[in-house]
Amino acid sequence: MAAHEVGSRGAQTRAAILRAARERFAAQGYERTTIRAVAADADIDPSMVMRYFGNKEKLFDEALAVDLRLPDLGAVPESELPQALVRHFVERWEGDPSDDALLVLLRSAVTNERAAQRMRETFAGQVAPALAAALGPERAARVAGLVAAQLLGLGLARYLLRLPGVVSLSADAVVAGLTPAVRATLAESG
Amino acid sequence: MAAHEVGSRGAQTRAAILRAARERFAAQGYERTTIRAVAADADIDPSMVMRYFGNKEKLFDEALAVDLRLPDLGAVPESELPQALVRHFVERWEGDPSDDALLVLLRSAVTNERAAQRMRETFAGQVAPALAAALGPERAARVAGLVAAQLLGLGLARYLLRLPGVVSLSADAVVAGLTPAVRATLAESG
Repeated sequence: MAAHEVGSRGAQTRAAILRAARERFAAQGYERTTIRAVAADADIDPSMVMRYFGNKEKLFDEALAVDLRLPDLGAVPESELPQALVRHFVERWEGDPSDDALLVLLRSAVTNERAAQRMRETFAGQVAPALAAALGPERAARVAGLVAAQLLGLGLARYLLRLPGVVSLSADAVVAGLTPAVRATLAESG
Repeated sequence: MAAHEVGSRGAQTRAAILRAARERFAAQGYERTTIRAVAADADIDPSMVMRYFGNKEKLFDEALAVDLRLPDLGAVPESELPQALVRHFVERWEGDPSDDALLVLLRSAVTNERAAQRMRETFAGQVAPALAAALGPERAARVAGLVAAQLLGLGLARYLLRLPGVVSLSADAVVAGLTPAVRATLAESG
């Protein structure tokens, strides 16, 4: 029982460090974030951060590990694919954008090459294969980039820049508004 | 003549400071950019930067003043509007993205509220009215945000993140690929 408690406390500490790290990386980007500041935010000693994560690079990699949790798009009828894609990302972001690893990563990726590389890997490793399951590899290769641009553009405009014309829409209106655009892009590949 | 020479040299110095400031803001964002670094890049004394611009905020405002130079969209037939819009931004960015004030501003705007506010003003003050001239104010209000999201998404994915699926396309292919998406969004407002 004691070991279980310690393990559970360890998991909580780890989660607290990752949450603090995501917030720091989000607000300040990679370069300006220090292990010391993350430790202070998580209310623990910096040596504990080092013990759990080794160094800042590894902490960044773990804090910003992005699992898009895309559904199996191969099981979605092609006519429903555009809406399923847009809805998936909107639902992901409507919860708490400041705790969403993809948006945090995006914040860092515009000025930090390490984060940009991680972003490229995330899309190449998750979005492109998910689209390939639905459209086949050749069609997916032709449109994956432009579809990613549209989804990221939405995340950027609504959750990071908060452009009034996008913020004023309900989540359903965003899905309804962007779905025809993604549909048009997918149709281009046919 | 002496006064004129001083004025001309002053204009050159001013331009050199603004160029250096744009590069620094682009590479490092607002917070990490210092007057001292900008002055060093422009090869002048920091006191001169203060004399010309007062402080970092004002330097930022002048360096990142964005004129989208949108054409009179009211003169474009509606069927050609989507392509005209996409082509305008692609041509703007294909030159030298690192010197484009809009992309520089975008880099800062994801982590800096001052830059985000400037971004919102730029779109509200330039894109929305340009669309209103073509679509009327009500239709423009319904779609300006989502159109902005698509154009910014392209700028983000191709020029800042350099996602392979977008970078691999020619400029013409980008225009051809994104035009149907913008067309679908505009059609939603009809």
